[in-house]
Amino acid sequence: MKKINIGLLGCGTVGTGVAKILIEKKDLISSRVGAELNLKYVADLDAARDRGIRFNEGILIKDPFKVVDDPETDIILEMIGGENIAKDLILRAIGNKKQIVTANKALLASHGNEIFRAAAAGGVDVAYEASVGGCMPIIKTLRESLAGNQVKSMVGILNGTCNYILSKITDDGSTFEAALSEAQAKGYAEADPTLDVEGFDTAHKLAILTSIAYCMEINFRDIYIEGISRITPLDIEFAGQFGYRIKLLAISKFRGNSVEARVHPTMIPFENILSNVNGSLNAITVSGDAAGDILLSGRGAGMMPTASAVISDTVDLARNIISGSVGRIPLLSCQTQNISRIPVMPVDEISTHYYFRFAALDRPRVLSKISGILGNHGISLKSVHQKGRKTNGSVPLVMLSHLCREENVKKALDEISRLDVVSTKPALIRIEDDNQED
Amino acid sequence: MKKINIGLLGCGTVGTGVAKILIEKKDLISSRVGAELNLKYVADLDAARDRGIRFNEGILIKDPFKVVDDPETDIILEMIGGENIAKDLILRAIGNKKQIVTANKALLASHGNEIFRAAAAGGVDVAYEASVGGCMPIIKTLRESLAGNQVKSMVGILNGTCNYILSKITDDGSTFEAALSEAQAKGYAEADPTLDVEGFDTAHKLAILTSIAYCMEINFRDIYIEGISRITPLDIEFAGQFGYRIKLLAISKFRGNSVEARVHPTMIPFENILSNVNGSLNAITVSGDAAGDILLSGRGAGMMPTASAVISDTVDLARNIISGSVGRIPLLSCQTQNISRIPVMPVDEISTHYYFRFAALDRPRVLSKISGILGNHGISLKSVHQKGRKTNGSVPLVMLSHLCREENVKKALDEISRLDVVSTKPALIRIEDDNQED
Repeated sequence: MKKINIGLLGCGTVGTGVAKILIEKKDLISSRVGAELNLKYVADLDAARDRGIRFNEGILIKDPFKVVDDPETDIILEMIGGENIAKDLILRAIGNKKQIVTANKALLASHGNEIFRAAAAGGVDVAYEASVGGCMPIIKTLRESLAGNQVKSMVGILNGTCNYILSKITDDGSTFEAALSEAQAKGYAEADPTLDVEGFDTAHKLAILTSIAYCMEINFRDIYIEGISRITPLDIEFAGQFGYRIKLLAISKFRGNSVEARVHPTMIPFENILSNVNGSLNAITVSGDAAGDILLSGRGAGMMPTASAVISDTVDLARNIISGSVGRIPLLSCQTQNISRIPVMPVDEISTHYYFRFAALDRPRVLSKISGILGNHGISLKSVHQKGRKTNGSVPLVMLSHLCREENVKKALDEISRLDVVSTKPALIRIEDDNQED
Repeated sequence: MKKINIGLLGCGTVGTGVAKILIEKKDLISSRVGAELNLKYVADLDAARDRGIRFNEGILIKDPFKVVDDPETDIILEMIGGENIAKDLILRAIGNKKQIVTANKALLASHGNEIFRAAAAGGVDVAYEASVGGCMPIIKTLRESLAGNQVKSMVGILNGTCNYILSKITDDGSTFEAALSEAQAKGYAEADPTLDVEGFDTAHKLAILTSIAYCMEINFRDIYIEGISRITPLDIEFAGQFGYRIKLLAISKFRGNSVEARVHPTMIPFENILSNVNGSLNAITVSGDAAGDILLSGRGAGMMPTASAVISDTVDLARNIISGSVGRIPLLSCQTQNISRIPVMPVDEISTHYYFRFAALDRPRVLSKISGILGNHGISLKSVHQKGRKTNGSVPLVMLSHLCREENVKKALDEISRLDVVSTKPALIRIEDDNQED
């Protein structure tokens, strides 16, 4: 039986899961691939830590460069994370004609174009299913299953930490801080939660998916990003009264000559199945012009779910090596010469529905002033609600808008927040509701 | 650019969708594949019907055997359906070394082993994503994305007609007959709905998925099948009171030396996301030992969703031809020599939770008699409810059981139905509830 040599770089949480599967399920994997996947090296600075795995002599080493330079290594699994050393190792491995598997969304979001260009030029594969959505096979679905579709839009919950926190606030009435602490205690959130909570991790993933879906260069820089740290229990409660649930969504829409790509807290109707995806789960709805809507959901993080995706990629690349078909599938969803540079639309240019909440000090006067300003900016309202009781001398005034342009909304809110009858900065949450036509 | 010649057999609903995509999206597909997918033949007895497509001269022919015998045809798309001629054509095409795409679940469920053996011996690929779940990529997920997993179980809604009918009864209070008529009017149900409504179509699909998931020979014959025609609005209402929704589920569980594979109406808790998959949608949850639960959902039928899956397969096979990697992925999920013959467990041997409804003529006496008989058969009850008012002289007596063995349940119900204080055949609905531990 042919032997494929695997070099694993980084043996933290995901790397350990990958090593476990490769060792404990060697026979199962051989029966699938028709070849032996041999874990030849595991490179990690911390060689002493007990990972619950018995590595054979000589497998666990410290120097990752030795792995990528070994002529016998066929596939490199980059599980180090971060941007600098991971990028150096991947580019060197590509130069050495190794096949690459990575789960590194931050790296691909920022340097994916360079890496993919090097891989295409070098004739090697880079597989990255584990970089988005853990075990849910969204990249395979976009790259392969939707080959006959023009993707029209994607709407996803791509960060388990944020989904866990929002679920706790919504269902258990937790505060943001308490929910975050609990997420940290359960290992869902990092000690520094900024990357998750402020939406950057979600945006890294959206950058990758947008690029595949519309076959365009990866463009992380132009994605609009807003996190969940300003979401209040009050807004969650109001959302529920209107039949909505708040989720941190990655949204991407194909607009022909441009694409929308944005990450922000979003109200979605209870009927939208994404509103039932709670806790640390991830999910995404992809809309193709032939397939219609496809929903995928699963564990977006964690040792074994992510390792499962890494093994899926490793098996794919091993099959390519065995059948002599490296480069069988292009790195994005189309041939390199067909990759376009469609711009990401500035958020000011999008049109959507909005929820506004104002803290009104003096309701009768403030209502006429606010609605006057909104009207001046062409923002028409679907409904106005005075909800709840006075706190700190102000009463919440809630409005839902018809479809309107973000730029106008910003100008109007800016003007409104300067009114003396409005006590705090207005709250704005975008609504994604397919049933609302205008 | 290399040209791959496609021969389409059958131009009904799905065939027409496939032809449309191949013609209208020729450039998009070329940009993905790096080759031209050329629709060389469309074979259909009805050459005159207007399909809204302008075929070039000579493409539309009547004789499908001409297509499979043409030395220039590379990939055959079998969209005829049914078992006889479709099987002959596929086997002849395999003999002629053509690559095959089929959406024919009835054929694969009954003759898949023979077809796959012929394909393996002939060194050709047979792709069949469209045979299960329309556009939702369940076969790719099982065969590729879960390569590092032992699949533990699958629970799916695989027939849109049944899901539509049950949703109508549940949400709109329709009768079974009214819901079926509406499904027929909307084109979701055939004039003869038996295949759908009695669960056979779901079982065809489950046979295929079970075979891939556990890498065993296809075994349709031993699947337990029960349709939805005996589900009453009363049982749906009671289900709702217990926090359950009734779905026609395909259930398959890996038991080591055997597998469970069964199709029947099932109560699932509202929290189970499948209970929110309504109307004509399909969905499936696959549980892998590494990945955990993955949910896929999408349109399980219809012209374009199914055509989307056929194109996905066609692109896969075209990529194999171009890269010289035919046979890159085994026909099931493991190499031919590793395919096992795990038996399907007789339904009598399964253990699950049950809902029973008895029509009791005389409550005090009947309760002691029924519970006595259940107790004698080792069936312990979680709860007993007398619900609703007397109709036709009898009152519904509803019971939920702890985990018990199907064989014992059958014996007990058989005995109970012979009691003179019980007016009609007891209703039995199995419950799938992960939160119930015993």
